[in-house]
Amino acid sequence: MRKQVIPVVAALAVVGTFSAVVYAQSADRVVKYRQGIMQAQGWHMGVLGGMAKGTRPYDKDVAVKHAKFVEALVQMPWEGFTPGSDTPANTKAKPEIWTEKAKFDKYAQEVQALAPKLVSAAGTDLNALRSAVGEVGRACNNCHDDFQKK
Amino acid sequence: MRKQVIPVVAALAVVGTFSAVVYAQSADRVVKYRQGIMQAQGWHMGVLGGMAKGTRPYDKDVAVKHAKFVEALVQMPWEGFTPGSDTPANTKAKPEIWTEKAKFDKYAQEVQALAPKLVSAAGTDLNALRSAVGEVGRACNNCHDDFQKK
Repeated sequence: MRKQVIPVVAALAVVGTFSAVVYAQSADRVVKYRQGIMQAQGWHMGVLGGMAKGTRPYDKDVAVKHAKFVEALVQMPWEGFTPGSDTPANTKAKPEIWTEKAKFDKYAQEVQALAPKLVSAAGTDLNALRSAVGEVGRACNNCHDDFQKK
Repeated sequence: MRKQVIPVVAALAVVGTFSAVVYAQSADRVVKYRQGIMQAQGWHMGVLGGMAKGTRPYDKDVAVKHAKFVEALVQMPWEGFTPGSDTPANTKAKPEIWTEKAKFDKYAQEVQALAPKLVSAAGTDLNALRSAVGEVGRACNNCHDDFQKK
């Protein structure tokens, strides 16, 4: 048994470079995680928004690629809103995220439901993309308006 | 025509809150984007690494969820390594990323090829997960060793 354990431990040592290996996450780490996801969402929505606004040429394949990235990313930030993580100085998260959790969760579900429509619209045409980008953008903003400090 | 354009522009105004709406991305923005993705990769690999190391209980559904997030995320950072974006003070990206591009791209392809195996292993059992986490971790580290400043 011991002979088997040692190589496994050695192989896993490489994972030690990831800073999230401990089960309990610090509030700072949690904030960095969710901000990273939001940053990435903004990046890909920005590409699609550029096409929608005409500051960037519409390309179906490129649009679908970025829409799929948005679809994946909108599933991710929620686990980063752990109770108590409104305290770090660098977060704009309002305490209402936790005191009005049902409302926050509803926004989260809404944007996740819109994301597959964004992918479909991105692969249809520019008009469809424009409309879907507007819808997703509004969903993002509704939540930011209520739950993000100015 | 004009009557149609005005509502579209109004609808798209909400997208203006995304900071990436311009076609040309600043080096700082690019660095924030790719660091956000790396941060998120580390988060999800950290959950899987915790299971692999036994500091967190193995749960098949949870493992598959996080492995799928890793699979999606490893497709994303590469577009953030735009030429010239090794200059901001807050990046650890070495100039070799651009001078040895073929090698960098090979690492990128390797980790993307390993990610579906991670998802499959996560849904198999703890031993399979351990082995796959080790493989992905090594792939990450190989690239960091060569292309990330200490």
